Amino acid sequence: MEFSVQTSRQRELADITEQVASAVAKSGVAEGICLAYVPHATAGIIINEFEPNIEADFLELFGKLFPSGNWRHNKIDDNAEAHLKSGFVGPGATVPVEGGRLLLGTWQRIILCEFDGPRKRMVVVKVVGK
Amino acid sequence: MEFSVQTSRQRELADITEQVASAVAKSGVAEGICLAYVPHATAGIIINEFEPNIEADFLELFGKLFPSGNWRHNKIDDNAEAHLKSGFVGPGATVPVEGGRLLLGTWQRIILCEFDGPRKRMVVVKVVGK
Amino acid sequence: MEFSVQTSRQRELADITEQVASAVAKSGVAEGICLAYVPHATAGIIINEFEPNIEADFLELFGKLFPSGNWRHNKIDDNAEAHLKSGFVGPGATVPVEGGRLLLGTWQRIILCEFDGPRKRMVVVKVVGK
Repeated sequence: MEFSVQTSRQRELADITEQVASAVAKSGVAEGICLAYVPHATAGIIINEFEPNIEADFLELFGKLFPSGNWRHNKIDDNAEAHLKSGFVGPGATVPVEGGRLLLGTWQRIILCEFDGPRKRMVVVKVVGK
Repeated sequence: MEFSVQTSRQRELADITEQVASAVAKSGVAEGICLAYVPHATAGIIINEFEPNIEADFLELFGKLFPSGNWRHNKIDDNAEAHLKSGFVGPGATVPVEGGRLLLGTWQRIILCEFDGPRKRMVVVKVVGK
Repeated sequence: MEFSVQTSRQRELADITEQVASAVAKSGVAEGICLAYVPHATAGIIINEFEPNIEADFLELFGKLFPSGNWRHNKIDDNAEAHLKSGFVGPGATVPVEGGRLLLGTWQRIILCEFDGPRKRMVVVKVVGK
């Protein structure tokens, strides 16, 4: 299963929990593992609390740890910083599935990280188990 | 399967390899993938060597990369730094299962990262395969 | 399934996509999840674009975020920096499998990160699903 997300800014976090949960429900798997995955090299997925302050804090931190600078890849395509963020964060997150549902903690949301938008991003969901 | 870990400090690493290995043994899966997962937004799981010097080095590095500071989320709850660490580290780690056992390298341990303790933390273990 | 990679430098990125794809093809799994995993505590796996400029950018960034310094673990073994990098990057990456093949984006490659080479590194590939 897959779905798309249209991001609206160059750097943005988007809560995709409901779409992933819906894919898990459709999978028919009761017990197992869910992988949410972006097939993109300038985006990523994290799991954490999601609210506007945390979004701004994450974006500020990403900017500090992975500054836009004089990266070599910018000679080819001016988005090296977005690749570095994506490489560190990773394109996928795995979540347990129990009772046919995502087993997330109270404050955990599945969050798409856009590092080079705005773009239309694909999210692939695979659920394995019984 | 799940188990709990009572952490004793605000920031701490805890070796949970034996508990995860025990869950794998009980799962009856011979070949597949094990996910160890914390349903918490201020904790995480990493895989690495575990000894007191490395624990102190990791905690020092976490403090440098993700400093407690004037984060926006602190207006809501004074633990933004713990959320940022958790978001980067991630709540889960996947390990191959072979011959009914975790296929870890000689120096690899599964390590719970407490970023906002002391607390009682849950660890969920899901094993998929044959 | 597993294969080995002989790295040639102390710090190096190596594209292992073809070897992982070959293991997926041999697994006979059409739909599921693939885990590529290094059983090593001073190496890691990321997914991103792979070309020489990006490799150099990643290695520069790793050096800045995780500097070789006066780490405590160096009293035991002079490779603390490599452990810290490995702990953050993580030893494994999970990728969706669809139609019997890795579902990677156009610019995504599976990349072994050598942080303490040159060494012979093992890569374990587990594919679960149907």
